[in-house]
Amino acid sequence: MNVLNDLLGRITERGRTLIGPGDPGADLLAQARALLSNEGEASGVARARNLLDRYHSLDPRSKAAFLSSLAVQIGPDLDRVIRGIEQFEADPGPATARDLHDAAEPRTDELLRRLNRAPQGTRDLVRMRADLIEVQPMTPELAGLDRDFRRLLSGWFNRGFLALDRIDWHTPAVVLEKIIAYEAVHAIHDWEDLRRRVAAPDRRLYAFFHPAMRDDPLIFVEVALLRDIPSAIGPILAKEREPLARDRVTTAVFYSISNCQKGLRGVSFGHFLIKQVVEELRQDFDMLKTFVTLSPVPGLRSWVQTQLGEGEMLTADDRARLAAFEGEDDDAPLDGADDFLASVAARYLVEARDRRGGPADPVARFHLSNGARLEAVHARADPGMRARRSAYGIMVNYRYDLGEIERNHEAFVQSGQVKHSSAVRRLLRTR
Amino acid sequence: MNVLNDLLGRITERGRTLIGPGDPGADLLAQARALLSNEGEASGVARARNLLDRYHSLDPRSKAAFLSSLAVQIGPDLDRVIRGIEQFEADPGPATARDLHDAAEPRTDELLRRLNRAPQGTRDLVRMRADLIEVQPMTPELAGLDRDFRRLLSGWFNRGFLALDRIDWHTPAVVLEKIIAYEAVHAIHDWEDLRRRVAAPDRRLYAFFHPAMRDDPLIFVEVALLRDIPSAIGPILAKEREPLARDRVTTAVFYSISNCQKGLRGVSFGHFLIKQVVEELRQDFDMLKTFVTLSPVPGLRSWVQTQLGEGEMLTADDRARLAAFEGEDDDAPLDGADDFLASVAARYLVEARDRRGGPADPVARFHLSNGARLEAVHARADPGMRARRSAYGIMVNYRYDLGEIERNHEAFVQSGQVKHSSAVRRLLRTR
Amino acid sequence: MNVLNDLLGRITERGRTLIGPGDPGADLLAQARALLSNEGEASGVARARNLLDRYHSLDPRSKAAFLSSLAVQIGPDLDRVIRGIEQFEADPGPATARDLHDAAEPRTDELLRRLNRAPQGTRDLVRMRADLIEVQPMTPELAGLDRDFRRLLSGWFNRGFLALDRIDWHTPAVVLEKIIAYEAVHAIHDWEDLRRRVAAPDRRLYAFFHPAMRDDPLIFVEVALLRDIPSAIGPILAKEREPLARDRVTTAVFYSISNCQKGLRGVSFGHFLIKQVVEELRQDFDMLKTFVTLSPVPGLRSWVQTQLGEGEMLTADDRARLAAFEGEDDDAPLDGADDFLASVAARYLVEARDRRGGPADPVARFHLSNGARLEAVHARADPGMRARRSAYGIMVNYRYDLGEIERNHEAFVQSGQVKHSSAVRRLLRTR
Amino acid sequence: MNVLNDLLGRITERGRTLIGPGDPGADLLAQARALLSNEGEASGVARARNLLDRYHSLDPRSKAAFLSSLAVQIGPDLDRVIRGIEQFEADPGPATARDLHDAAEPRTDELLRRLNRAPQGTRDLVRMRADLIEVQPMTPELAGLDRDFRRLLSGWFNRGFLALDRIDWHTPAVVLEKIIAYEAVHAIHDWEDLRRRVAAPDRRLYAFFHPAMRDDPLIFVEVALLRDIPSAIGPILAKEREPLARDRVTTAVFYSISNCQKGLRGVSFGHFLIKQVVEELRQDFDMLKTFVTLSPVPGLRSWVQTQLGEGEMLTADDRARLAAFEGEDDDAPLDGADDFLASVAARYLVEARDRRGGPADPVARFHLSNGARLEAVHARADPGMRARRSAYGIMVNYRYDLGEIERNHEAFVQSGQVKHSSAVRRLLRTR
Repeated sequence: MNVLNDLLGRITERGRTLIGPGDPGADLLAQARALLSNEGEASGVARARNLLDRYHSLDPRSKAAFLSSLAVQIGPDLDRVIRGIEQFEADPGPATARDLHDAAEPRTDELLRRLNRAPQGTRDLVRMRADLIEVQPMTPELAGLDRDFRRLLSGWFNRGFLALDRIDWHTPAVVLEKIIAYEAVHAIHDWEDLRRRVAAPDRRLYAFFHPAMRDDPLIFVEVALLRDIPSAIGPILAKEREPLARDRVTTAVFYSISNCQKGLRGVSFGHFLIKQVVEELRQDFDMLKTFVTLSPVPGLRSWVQTQLGEGEMLTADDRARLAAFEGEDDDAPLDGADDFLASVAARYLVEARDRRGGPADPVARFHLSNGARLEAVHARADPGMRARRSAYGIMVNYRYDLGEIERNHEAFVQSGQVKHSSAVRRLLRTR
Repeated sequence: MNVLNDLLGRITERGRTLIGPGDPGADLLAQARALLSNEGEASGVARARNLLDRYHSLDPRSKAAFLSSLAVQIGPDLDRVIRGIEQFEADPGPATARDLHDAAEPRTDELLRRLNRAPQGTRDLVRMRADLIEVQPMTPELAGLDRDFRRLLSGWFNRGFLALDRIDWHTPAVVLEKIIAYEAVHAIHDWEDLRRRVAAPDRRLYAFFHPAMRDDPLIFVEVALLRDIPSAIGPILAKEREPLARDRVTTAVFYSISNCQKGLRGVSFGHFLIKQVVEELRQDFDMLKTFVTLSPVPGLRSWVQTQLGEGEMLTADDRARLAAFEGEDDDAPLDGADDFLASVAARYLVEARDRRGGPADPVARFHLSNGARLEAVHARADPGMRARRSAYGIMVNYRYDLGEIERNHEAFVQSGQVKHSSAVRRLLRTR
Repeated sequence: MNVLNDLLGRITERGRTLIGPGDPGADLLAQARALLSNEGEASGVARARNLLDRYHSLDPRSKAAFLSSLAVQIGPDLDRVIRGIEQFEADPGPATARDLHDAAEPRTDELLRRLNRAPQGTRDLVRMRADLIEVQPMTPELAGLDRDFRRLLSGWFNRGFLALDRIDWHTPAVVLEKIIAYEAVHAIHDWEDLRRRVAAPDRRLYAFFHPAMRDDPLIFVEVALLRDIPSAIGPILAKEREPLARDRVTTAVFYSISNCQKGLRGVSFGHFLIKQVVEELRQDFDMLKTFVTLSPVPGLRSWVQTQLGEGEMLTADDRARLAAFEGEDDDAPLDGADDFLASVAARYLVEARDRRGGPADPVARFHLSNGARLEAVHARADPGMRARRSAYGIMVNYRYDLGEIERNHEAFVQSGQVKHSSAVRRLLRTR
Repeated sequence: MNVLNDLLGRITERGRTLIGPGDPGADLLAQARALLSNEGEASGVARARNLLDRYHSLDPRSKAAFLSSLAVQIGPDLDRVIRGIEQFEADPGPATARDLHDAAEPRTDELLRRLNRAPQGTRDLVRMRADLIEVQPMTPELAGLDRDFRRLLSGWFNRGFLALDRIDWHTPAVVLEKIIAYEAVHAIHDWEDLRRRVAAPDRRLYAFFHPAMRDDPLIFVEVALLRDIPSAIGPILAKEREPLARDRVTTAVFYSISNCQKGLRGVSFGHFLIKQVVEELRQDFDMLKTFVTLSPVPGLRSWVQTQLGEGEMLTADDRARLAAFEGEDDDAPLDGADDFLASVAARYLVEARDRRGGPADPVARFHLSNGARLEAVHARADPGMRARRSAYGIMVNYRYDLGEIERNHEAFVQSGQVKHSSAVRRLLRTR
């Protein structure tokens, strides 16, 4: 076990150097240790609150120093792990396995649980993890701490604890301004724009909330209620339009889904949100039969660029034609290329894979793994700069067909199959 | 590793025999496995709900069979534990320690997290644990499962997620009837009795709630606002009494604390509750200076009985005198013995120890570890049958002196010291 | 105008004698005058609150003295009326008519408006009117004051200001205890009885509330959801019964309607309540087609008694047979007389008239004027003492047929026609 | 009584001509008559709702026609008035006075009461009155109808029915956008400006609401919490400023009061609002001792203009000096004239009278009649265009000194005395 002792020594060394003497993060680490050592004391909640307040008042460098030294100094207790292993090996079985599980629990977990007891503790820990994600690329020792945060937050933000709220014009401003800030797909320009999206009779916005963060949404989806499946975002976001009469609604379009909390990265709610919103809408609109998205294809162009040299998924002709676009000004019209680009996008979405064998496009991955199928590909669907730059202005519909969601999901999970409509099939054949 | 394989074999064997063919619990176990194997499927929430519904419709025998086979068949994955150990030993450090922690996590944890996603899942899991506690004494293999429940519930019922609510006459009946049902110290006889305790201007009742169980309190405390420290429970619970004027209130008396959820045994909120209620009351009543309990001494008489033979903590004289009480009818008056009994109680509370070296009396243990001190011992304080049988009718005050709570807590934790007043000290000297 | 001066003199005289010197009501009258004379003063709201507090602390005799002297001394300003008449006659037209309307407004109205500004003023004025109704029979001069109260309260309790709330087991105890107290038809014995009526899935209770009296219902109706029109109250109120499955509900039965506020006598909400509850229920239960009451016939027996001598509406034979019942013990069985009594009740309900030409029975009057029809008459429908004494245990159904409510109402209002079913017609023919 | 018959004839004639055949208002008048004639019918509420919907869909001309013919055709019932007079004269006394009051009640009152029964009826009637006020100047026959509206609305919007709410950043957007729209003194430029006024820790905004119009404020006041009495509006509305620490607050400044509902003109809540807000603030801030306004002087300049020729309240010198300002560009600096203008403003506020003998300035009238005193006059206090044009940029403080409010109010009401500080007295002497 000399190896271990040596390791412990080196780690501690590194921890010490991370926070120099006099750094305000040093005091904070001492306070964290004190919080950990003292169960049940009268002032635990107040101390936790105080530690969080002091942390949030630090400048970014001191925050990083505090988090790094936390990562190095208050992680797994390796001595305890080793003892746990010895006991398991002496009497292997469920009980000693559980003991080992406990022994190997990083002390961070208990620290985070104690910090969470403070008023507004949950909110502050989510923010602290956002800081962590920010500084992590530069400091590899933070990976373990991040893993601890994610494990705990996953448990605390279990879907059973979340509330689905409809956001409308009766929602408090404190929440609405966050919707404006968090919208990540089609920016909300001002309060009037927001009002069109939440207060029109044929628009809906639903969000998940955690009870310990009632003013701050976790994720939200924007819905347009239409008569037909849309092929472009423009008409949906138009300033002047006649709302559709309630009894003519047949199609619900999820046209924007935004995760709100950077600090909850890796804790997934999206599929729960879509499923429950489908239920809510079905109860509200008798004639509602069709549920689709109108989604961006964020990875299309960068994938094309990787293929330009010698990608096997495109013919030489295709590559030449696509190369021409690269020279063009981003804002140039793509006249005449609609069908071609749509077919390239279809190939990308159905055939391109990421390292783990799933669809290369992250939005595709999300909806397909939820059981949706790729329904249609639309050129010139989004004239905005971002969509043109990342996807030649292409958008697509994923369709949630309630009768086949589960089957699609199974097929996707087991064989990576990307379900698609006959229209998409035709596009694939046009190569 | 033959040992392990052998063990695995035997455990599986036992699991198989626990649920006979055709038992409704068998189906349920299969459903639990299915729920575990399928992440992200569209119907996961519905399946979880369905499993919980079916579980709660089982008869007690089938519930026990289901829980036992769950305990045996879906616990730690020993193969994975062994692999985790190998990897840790190959490269010991924080990362492999975290891997090992994950590897040793019982699969129960993930099952419970998935069940919790169902609407009302939290409530149903708390009930399931109550069943588990019920059947556990007879089935030792359940200890591990119980440990898993407790670990998860401790995380979910973190104090940061709880809300403190004042219960009064504007509280919904669905909550009030649970207060009546859960009161464990001084029974609430009917709705009129409840009204006296929650609606009188000099009475308060506070409870902790979890947001996923808004209709069901977790723990509550009843408070009487008085002018002086009370020496008996009768005047507090009296049917006819004049409420104390608001500006004459100087003393808050915690006269009853009840845990409500058997399924949350071992998840402690009591000290958080008392601390926050003290804060609330201080904001409401300017002149409030004194915070005490009026508490039972539930272990006194059974301790006396263990001492009667040859206990070293009592003199032979004392033992003889106390032995006489044992012969007496429970309801007989204890004339003339007040001071003697009070001094015996004081000795019991200050000096008697449990196996772990703490105070023998559970109520004393709770308040002393919170930082209270033993303030006074009162004979003939509770004429009720239960109090006479368990404690000769004695009750005591524990005092929460805000200036010394923390010091007392430290002293108690570190040296097991039982802080007590000079009045109690006098009682101790009278032996 | 000497007559008037004389009258004024006599009235003032009487007012003076009503409140003797030293009576606490005298002070209060002075305070009322002060409140009236001083518009806009800073302390008006506080003075109003103070006057109401002092009023409610008076003993009944002093309350009566205060109300009487109020009635005599702060009513219409006859001088002002006379001047208003002169001006109208000088220039008759809408403007002088409005001036006259203002001139003739009793000063009570302004006093009540100012008292109403106090916190809880509305509630206290409703209670004051209840006192007024109590003492009115003995003091004729109160009739005018009562008329003023009723006029103002009618305006304030306009249906547009009322909220319909469903009362269930989530309702605060402070409201539920009032439901128990106010139930006037089939007494609610205790909280368990209440729970059966509000928390069972096939039972409903709806109440109207005024926003200034959120804790105190104005009127409520109890509803049983059944498969068939009921012929007796017993099965509806039974302690042990299987609730009807939601999808089998076809019939809503209004089995009890209670006015809660004596002080709102003459301010009617009942027909608004029934109509809105019908709407609520239709939205909740798809299969709901039939809306009926199960109602008492409170005036039947006393009407029979008036007919016994020589009533023209009964034959000599009938009278003889009915006379026999009068001799009987109230609790004696009425064997064999079911059909006969039902036919007498039918005649009473359809043919007997009150002084104003409407149906003699007050419950019949209420439902028929709402547009219901008399659907069925049931003997032995209510075995309770009150029902036997007042109506030989008979109950009836009034049916609200949505397709004919308006027509029935018109026919009732214009020609006094009592709509009834063919079953009732058969009963009428059996005489 | 021929005169009356003749009058009735002429009025009806005029009514007939107001709504030409085929005008949509004609149908509506018929519907109003039907609503009046049919008490208790099943569909009354629905009919009222329908009438209001149809009214609000009319174009302005048809609305005016409907209101005018309503005014002429459904007002006082002159025949009934005459009969009431005859009966009163035959037997003059309180009872016949009350009968006469009823007889002279315009039938409009009952119509409005029935319209108010509709869902959202109150809101729609307030809007209808706003229409009425709009068209009234051109149609004298509407004065009576307006009087009826005002009488009824005064009763319904009694202070006892209003709720005081604090408006902050948790308030629903539907209310906040109305605050932006209704602010009548210092315009709120956008949502950020609003946020500064409601969400900063040293700013407050309170509004009165009626329970039947929960989304629409009636009146609101904006409050700045400061250390000293302010002499200019700029620092209060500044975009960038450091909020004052809670424990340094000594002075509450009411810097803007806005009536929101044109349709409630003549129904006053302002003094109730100020008084209750003072109470709220005193409970929130221990050190708060001073309550003042920072108010415009809207009538100053137009009063000066009326005085320029030969006003006796200014000397010839003053008049000459003031005349110079009239020639100036509105935006020109008023250098060196500060003290002079302040002294003119003080004379205007303390000495100038309106027709009824009260202060000429409407804002002065409001605060002085509430019991405030004129505390200080500040030149160059508001650099905004409106303030410069109407008052040379002058603003003033009215002070609510709790110890003298009532005395000031009495003095003001009885003798028209304008209480003012010694500082103002000095200004008055400088003439």
